[in-house]
Amino acid sequence: MKAGLKRIEQEAAQVHQKILKGAKPALRFPVRSLANVRYVPQRGFFELRGRKKERALTVATVRTFAQTLRLMSLSRDLMRADDIATKREAYYVSKNWGEARFAAQEESDTIIEDVEALCELNREQLGFVPEEKGGDVAGALTVIDTDPATGKALRIDCTRFGSGAYSIPISVEHLRFETKADFLLVIETAGMFQRLVKHGYWKKGRCILISMGGVPTRACRRFIRRLADEKGLPVYVFVDGDPYGICNIYRTLKVGSGNAAHLNEYFCVPQARYLGITPEDIERYQLPTHPLKEVDVKRARDAMKNDPFIQHHRVWREALEKLLSLGIRAEQQALATHGLNYVIDHYLPEKLAHPERFLP
Amino acid sequence: MKAGLKRIEQEAAQVHQKILKGAKPALRFPVRSLANVRYVPQRGFFELRGRKKERALTVATVRTFAQTLRLMSLSRDLMRADDIATKREAYYVSKNWGEARFAAQEESDTIIEDVEALCELNREQLGFVPEEKGGDVAGALTVIDTDPATGKALRIDCTRFGSGAYSIPISVEHLRFETKADFLLVIETAGMFQRLVKHGYWKKGRCILISMGGVPTRACRRFIRRLADEKGLPVYVFVDGDPYGICNIYRTLKVGSGNAAHLNEYFCVPQARYLGITPEDIERYQLPTHPLKEVDVKRARDAMKNDPFIQHHRVWREALEKLLSLGIRAEQQALATHGLNYVIDHYLPEKLAHPERFLP
Repeated sequence: MKAGLKRIEQEAAQVHQKILKGAKPALRFPVRSLANVRYVPQRGFFELRGRKKERALTVATVRTFAQTLRLMSLSRDLMRADDIATKREAYYVSKNWGEARFAAQEESDTIIEDVEALCELNREQLGFVPEEKGGDVAGALTVIDTDPATGKALRIDCTRFGSGAYSIPISVEHLRFETKADFLLVIETAGMFQRLVKHGYWKKGRCILISMGGVPTRACRRFIRRLADEKGLPVYVFVDGDPYGICNIYRTLKVGSGNAAHLNEYFCVPQARYLGITPEDIERYQLPTHPLKEVDVKRARDAMKNDPFIQHHRVWREALEKLLSLGIRAEQQALATHGLNYVIDHYLPEKLAHPERFLP
Repeated sequence: MKAGLKRIEQEAAQVHQKILKGAKPALRFPVRSLANVRYVPQRGFFELRGRKKERALTVATVRTFAQTLRLMSLSRDLMRADDIATKREAYYVSKNWGEARFAAQEESDTIIEDVEALCELNREQLGFVPEEKGGDVAGALTVIDTDPATGKALRIDCTRFGSGAYSIPISVEHLRFETKADFLLVIETAGMFQRLVKHGYWKKGRCILISMGGVPTRACRRFIRRLADEKGLPVYVFVDGDPYGICNIYRTLKVGSGNAAHLNEYFCVPQARYLGITPEDIERYQLPTHPLKEVDVKRARDAMKNDPFIQHHRVWREALEKLLSLGIRAEQQALATHGLNYVIDHYLPEKLAHPERFLP
């Protein structure tokens, strides 16, 4: 959190100086909109262009200006005390700020995002954390955390949780890692994760299993990214073969989301590769399928038309076109039709023999 | 799983005997409907009355009869191999059963419920597990699981997860527990859980912290129940002061749900008591509130009219009436208005000094 503390104090000092000189204080924020964003395939996520807007202290902006400074001050308190606040809590804290209190959480959320952009840090680095937890881990990984009571390092061995798992905390910036695994296997459903855990798949696969439980939370995405970066590990993603698995879960994990471009730098996982289920898997493994619902069709068409990531990759456009023309989708659990552990004995070993064939 | 194996084999043997004698085989299921249910306040959950229906083998029932026997056989295989299957996987497995395959998962789900009722066991005891995981644990608890590779006991110390937590597995029937805690503190939101974990609240509170993350999953409810039963611990539930927190989250945890009465015996937590937020807390702690939405009003009115648990307890009816007449609700995070750690320094100690005042 040191970096955040320094940035906040710099910005505050600049405002303070201006006031001492009798000048109008101002804060300069990057413009947060699609128009101020570029897609850089080499870096793998939507990036902010340089444009900024200025918020100067005027009669019209006095309330927002004060709220911004108070939230910066709250963030500084959090970092100094090594504490955290959810966005919801930050909103409630403001109820004691007199005229600067927020009327609704949307207001405080917007200003928290402004402060993130101002400091070029994500809000977890500023002490603000999401409401939701999510993401379970099992396998060849030791997470190194800090004991809050003693401040000493705490080694969490993710091979020792039996049928249970390590649950990723809301904020992961402070964690360190040790591992001898060859790759991360990131799984869509809790059911499939539980099967692989139950059979100790991480041992024969020499991997770390991570369950997203649907669209991954911020903490889960950031955990995967930090772990993969720090240990130089490939990330293989095992989701359902349907537009939701591809365009929502996988795409969000890999390149981030469209409406929070100033954060994708932290929350994307550019090294992610799609292990399955592919449209070709559906044929090769003769999987039972379901017809595409209307919402699936719409999602796939929208992605081909509007999603810069899907548009960039011809093979993804072809894969979605194939699903659309066949009018079908298949779930990862459909492999159970060949036996409950077919996924362990056949599917995963066959796929993992050829990572170069994984979709991008 | 031994009990399940015996019950399945008894039922199958009975069918087999009948066939050998040249008689029509039949299976007798308890009738699963509200009409065959009673509310027993002393026992704390909806109970089945004794009525049964018979499914004899006829031309009309031959497919369902065969499917029931095949699912019983799959359950037996699971228990013998110490394996698990989600309901979704069980459905896919049936795709290889020729004429006995299921056309849709609703069909196999219904028959899994029949088999549960037939055996008077829950489906986790039969090897079938839910799709979702859920429930995080931190604090003065050691969970004893089995290492799947070696079969040896594995001790999981829930004080040693730092800012993370122990994630409850999908099936918890095999777990054992050791603890010196005085009570379980069961929490609605992940954000509040993370705050209490971050500040090591379980240490000064001498308790076990459990995060439900909204309406608790089956595994989370069963975990709390088994732990509380085995260790004789009280269960205090800390949720939002609104009709959803009271009538959905707390009610479901404590007495179970209406549409799965044959399971409530396993999944209810009769020892649960409501620690807060109560309508009186809103006044005493001068919490910031939100107006009740239309859906909140409807939920509260429905509960007072139709929910046997709420109807049974005058104080609950009064509490809901108070919320309705004030037209407000308050979240547990609203305590942050008095300072982020007011909940730890004031609210929880003050409430815990008088457990006898907790709502039932």
